[in-house]
Amino acid sequence: MVRPGDRQTWAGGRPAAPFDIVRAAHCELIVTDLARSREFYAGALGLAVTEETARALYLRGYEDRHHHCLALRLGPRPAVGHVAFLVASEDDLGRAATYYRARGCPVRIVERENAGQPRAVRVHDPLGFPLEFFANMTMAESLLQRYDLHRGARIMRLDHFNLHVPDVQAAFDYYYGALGFRCSEYIAGDPAPGVPDGPLYAAWLFRKPNVHDVALTAGAGPRLHHLAFWTADTDAIIGFCDQLGGAGRYAAIERGPGRHGIGNAFYLYLRDPDGHRVELYTSDYWTGDPDLQPRRWSAGNAQRRSFWGHEVPERWYRESSEVLGPDGLPVPLSEPAANERAVEVLPQ
Amino acid sequence: MVRPGDRQTWAGGRPAAPFDIVRAAHCELIVTDLARSREFYAGALGLAVTEETARALYLRGYEDRHHHCLALRLGPRPAVGHVAFLVASEDDLGRAATYYRARGCPVRIVERENAGQPRAVRVHDPLGFPLEFFANMTMAESLLQRYDLHRGARIMRLDHFNLHVPDVQAAFDYYYGALGFRCSEYIAGDPAPGVPDGPLYAAWLFRKPNVHDVALTAGAGPRLHHLAFWTADTDAIIGFCDQLGGAGRYAAIERGPGRHGIGNAFYLYLRDPDGHRVELYTSDYWTGDPDLQPRRWSAGNAQRRSFWGHEVPERWYRESSEVLGPDGLPVPLSEPAANERAVEVLPQ
Amino acid sequence: MVRPGDRQTWAGGRPAAPFDIVRAAHCELIVTDLARSREFYAGALGLAVTEETARALYLRGYEDRHHHCLALRLGPRPAVGHVAFLVASEDDLGRAATYYRARGCPVRIVERENAGQPRAVRVHDPLGFPLEFFANMTMAESLLQRYDLHRGARIMRLDHFNLHVPDVQAAFDYYYGALGFRCSEYIAGDPAPGVPDGPLYAAWLFRKPNVHDVALTAGAGPRLHHLAFWTADTDAIIGFCDQLGGAGRYAAIERGPGRHGIGNAFYLYLRDPDGHRVELYTSDYWTGDPDLQPRRWSAGNAQRRSFWGHEVPERWYRESSEVLGPDGLPVPLSEPAANERAVEVLPQ
Amino acid sequence: MVRPGDRQTWAGGRPAAPFDIVRAAHCELIVTDLARSREFYAGALGLAVTEETARALYLRGYEDRHHHCLALRLGPRPAVGHVAFLVASEDDLGRAATYYRARGCPVRIVERENAGQPRAVRVHDPLGFPLEFFANMTMAESLLQRYDLHRGARIMRLDHFNLHVPDVQAAFDYYYGALGFRCSEYIAGDPAPGVPDGPLYAAWLFRKPNVHDVALTAGAGPRLHHLAFWTADTDAIIGFCDQLGGAGRYAAIERGPGRHGIGNAFYLYLRDPDGHRVELYTSDYWTGDPDLQPRRWSAGNAQRRSFWGHEVPERWYRESSEVLGPDGLPVPLSEPAANERAVEVLPQ
Repeated sequence: MVRPGDRQTWAGGRPAAPFDIVRAAHCELIVTDLARSREFYAGALGLAVTEETARALYLRGYEDRHHHCLALRLGPRPAVGHVAFLVASEDDLGRAATYYRARGCPVRIVERENAGQPRAVRVHDPLGFPLEFFANMTMAESLLQRYDLHRGARIMRLDHFNLHVPDVQAAFDYYYGALGFRCSEYIAGDPAPGVPDGPLYAAWLFRKPNVHDVALTAGAGPRLHHLAFWTADTDAIIGFCDQLGGAGRYAAIERGPGRHGIGNAFYLYLRDPDGHRVELYTSDYWTGDPDLQPRRWSAGNAQRRSFWGHEVPERWYRESSEVLGPDGLPVPLSEPAANERAVEVLPQ
Repeated sequence: MVRPGDRQTWAGGRPAAPFDIVRAAHCELIVTDLARSREFYAGALGLAVTEETARALYLRGYEDRHHHCLALRLGPRPAVGHVAFLVASEDDLGRAATYYRARGCPVRIVERENAGQPRAVRVHDPLGFPLEFFANMTMAESLLQRYDLHRGARIMRLDHFNLHVPDVQAAFDYYYGALGFRCSEYIAGDPAPGVPDGPLYAAWLFRKPNVHDVALTAGAGPRLHHLAFWTADTDAIIGFCDQLGGAGRYAAIERGPGRHGIGNAFYLYLRDPDGHRVELYTSDYWTGDPDLQPRRWSAGNAQRRSFWGHEVPERWYRESSEVLGPDGLPVPLSEPAANERAVEVLPQ
Repeated sequence: MVRPGDRQTWAGGRPAAPFDIVRAAHCELIVTDLARSREFYAGALGLAVTEETARALYLRGYEDRHHHCLALRLGPRPAVGHVAFLVASEDDLGRAATYYRARGCPVRIVERENAGQPRAVRVHDPLGFPLEFFANMTMAESLLQRYDLHRGARIMRLDHFNLHVPDVQAAFDYYYGALGFRCSEYIAGDPAPGVPDGPLYAAWLFRKPNVHDVALTAGAGPRLHHLAFWTADTDAIIGFCDQLGGAGRYAAIERGPGRHGIGNAFYLYLRDPDGHRVELYTSDYWTGDPDLQPRRWSAGNAQRRSFWGHEVPERWYRESSEVLGPDGLPVPLSEPAANERAVEVLPQ
Repeated sequence: MVRPGDRQTWAGGRPAAPFDIVRAAHCELIVTDLARSREFYAGALGLAVTEETARALYLRGYEDRHHHCLALRLGPRPAVGHVAFLVASEDDLGRAATYYRARGCPVRIVERENAGQPRAVRVHDPLGFPLEFFANMTMAESLLQRYDLHRGARIMRLDHFNLHVPDVQAAFDYYYGALGFRCSEYIAGDPAPGVPDGPLYAAWLFRKPNVHDVALTAGAGPRLHHLAFWTADTDAIIGFCDQLGGAGRYAAIERGPGRHGIGNAFYLYLRDPDGHRVELYTSDYWTGDPDLQPRRWSAGNAQRRSFWGHEVPERWYRESSEVLGPDGLPVPLSEPAANERAVEVLPQ
């Protein structure tokens, strides 16, 4: 068991790791109606379509130079096909395969399975999540300066994944202790006599130097709580609320807009037509200094989830997207022992 | 009984009126702790202090050239001393006095009672509200271009008053039918066979050409539901939420930020230290064309109060500031027969 | 000769006038290539197309409920067909015709000549400008809350006209002294012994209560220096610069973005494909109080034209659109005796 | 000689380097009047004062957790004391000393010379610049979420240094070829027969994954062209222009605001009271993917320096701050052989 303040071994300016993850990179969502999802992600949110087939759609943000940061695949029920991380080199792909095989996890080398991605390593990790690692992707035109084409929520790129896990401490041991993620912020139960820190309820973990690539939240899991896109600025988020209102699709707004206490980002939570949760996220902070210390939040701090003290809807804590196992079926869920919700202070 | 679409007699580019109201201009709030209120209005919100005495404080927005748009007066319990309208000329003051005397209302000429205001006509109107009319005020330096001094919510000026009245139709007859206010938008019950429009639940009424100087809302009254200040832009409102969060006073936020369906303005509702409700408001629209038709909203339209479909907190509908009568005591309340709340659709 | 501070006779909350002008309302530009102009005004700027014929295009802002605020008409060379003001009633149309006939000006009643406008009075006024007055226009759908459709510079409505006139004082006598426009700000030569104020170089005049409906600038005239559209906010202007850059049409930017010292508005000046100058303009201030005093600027004040001290390009002072006379030919120009440019202080 | 596209040896997710630079971190400016500079940097720009002595002032951005990102030291004439880079560990300090000693450069270990910085390695590098490397600094309170205290240009942190060097190719060989900086963008002369790329006029180089930590520009050098601070957003920059205008200190604005073609950032260039150039900078893009290819710009591209086609003032290219040598005197300048200015296309 490691705790957020515990020392990590470093190499090359980052914690040492069995293979070198650069950042959270893309996600595959299983959707039940491609046209309807296209209308949401490309039509309303404004993601750029790189490639399209009868059963899949590949989208990217305006800043992306890679083929996609979101793949939508047609399926019988909503689920998460995989979440993917960019690694530093093809060698790291081999190291990742070796690492997971050694831990007894199902590992598969996938070649040209996704459009735009020649090769990847697909694993089902110890937490039960389907992960994909890749080092190369087909390039696509960056639309960063094609401001004349920017629309919708002005999404620049994918930022992070938030995972619902039944045992945050175990997941933390894996990401922080084993994979070399650093920790920017966390929520813990209050200290008690002889216990310097209470149970870990949530943690924000990063490889790229902003607040997170992966957040861990206590809940029935393994599930994907949300994926988050980075928008151009806060105005893009406010403007998108107005656009949803104008189009009569305001019901897609689940929570926000607002400012996170934890992580400082400006946010909006949406639910896509299949119920997958998408966060629009921008304006967090630089975490790349080696001496950065994790910031601790009490579960009773009303500003932790909303810096403005807004109440978080109950379903935001509870609902999440199931993930597919190696058999293509949803991975069965385990319930958490405890979560922050049990001890939270309601906003005043 | 007049209805929002009914024709008004016009003169000089506006509906004819017994005296010429230019706009909603200032408000006197009774507060129980001047220092605490000063910290809120001047400290946090950033209103400029024009003048200060042991028992009163006079504040203005950055655009104001008049002495104040808000007067705070020390008193034993929170209440509204008066709301004030600027009239076109001293002659209009005389006409206002005549008009109210003829309707049997208490009328008093107040001279130098408020700092910065040489002369005013104070009345208790047929709806039970303490109103003040004035044509001249001491000038103060406009801080419009002193951007180096702008702070807080970057408030430019007062925009409007929202009144809780037990009988919206009666109040509408008075403001629209008698005082020459125009109507921009309104909420009415659904039409029924033989009834082209249902009961009037709320109305937005103006003399100056934006959405309103006065809004009428069904509720126990007479009470002041809120006064609203015009901010520089929507960023001023978002930024102010962050400032409240940063100062640990987020509990002052009651509702929002958001976009109104009705009136289109961007808003935030605050409660001051005495519980008086203050709206930050910006970005509505031009209503000065003679052919503007009032826009009707159904009470069941979930976007009417929040264009983004956000739920309105129950207390926002219910709580309000009492107003002082001619005897200096709170005016007793009457309950409304019906209100939109009874028929509203909850956000989905 | 009247000066900006001189008293005007008032009636009904505004200066008395021979006919009641509500606001600057629309403009007809003669363009040499309709498709190219459509691409600029509808394509890049994002104005909504209400109606289109082989020889004309009618556009409106998102807030407009009237058929158009800009008409483009095909012609052999760029020019201004007319600038138009909304008047309070059909009676005011008759009064306008009478007024101009009495002054010996050509007056014509135009019926159904412009799409969407049943009736108007067209005059060639004493300054040589082709003016149109109208009281009614076909209604069009307001797109104010169709945020999902907003694009380009997010233009809400037309704000004002800026006129190049050889004799600003004569033009001021006409607008301020005769037509009942009020004055918000002006540039004058420095006072000298016995002369309380120097020559008038420019003036900002209004009927609707913001900074102006008409600005008068010294220059060879009569010409239209620019027409100005009101944008949603300053971000709309910044964002539009980026869009022009992204589309490789940055050469359309002539001056700005910046903040005006005079009038306080945020601005950007563009030149359309025919060289007509268009200002994007937002965020000035309320001028409707009867006691508003005109604000005087010295021609030597480097912040008058740019609050940030930016230099104004020489051609911005010199170039302008010719206007058509009653014969359909450009009105010959007269040169000004003097202008602010001769005495201005270069930015440091 | 290396060129921007040439392959670098990688280690640990970044190019291998003799010592591990994390990011551009702080700068020491010699100023001639501390009170006047304090008024500019703390007063107007709003940087937070961490520590202050009779002869020096230490300031930080709102996001900084380190003691300072800017040190002002009193001196007889304006100059640059040093620019500083954070390295990954104390071991890297030793490696840096070794590296520079091996290249014959003056190296000095400074202990507690700057407030808040226990230990640093000071070198005069092969390009003639005074550099400082440090691995640890005293912590200061991050003001990131103290939005109630944010003011001025809302500066978050230091972003980069721009260096005037007489030989860009030589400087590029050093930073890219030797120190392991990556290259995001560059300006080169047009290719000619047999020459795939013309001379290098400027290059943007990074260790932290945004556009740059160091930019190299052809000019008489060694000099510091500017240091750049990262602001909260573009509104912070626009708002700061207004603040300078409001305070009558608009003359501090040298260029902008605008959008860079190269790097995509929103910018404003200021000159401090001693003439040191400061850039406000925000909103560039993520460069941390290993497969990022440097983007090439032609010196004749009018959008390279200003995406909106704005002209760059001549003095912006020419003027710069001298740097101090090991003797405490300004390092003599060498003139460049050529620069982009000679071939640039004037904006249309």
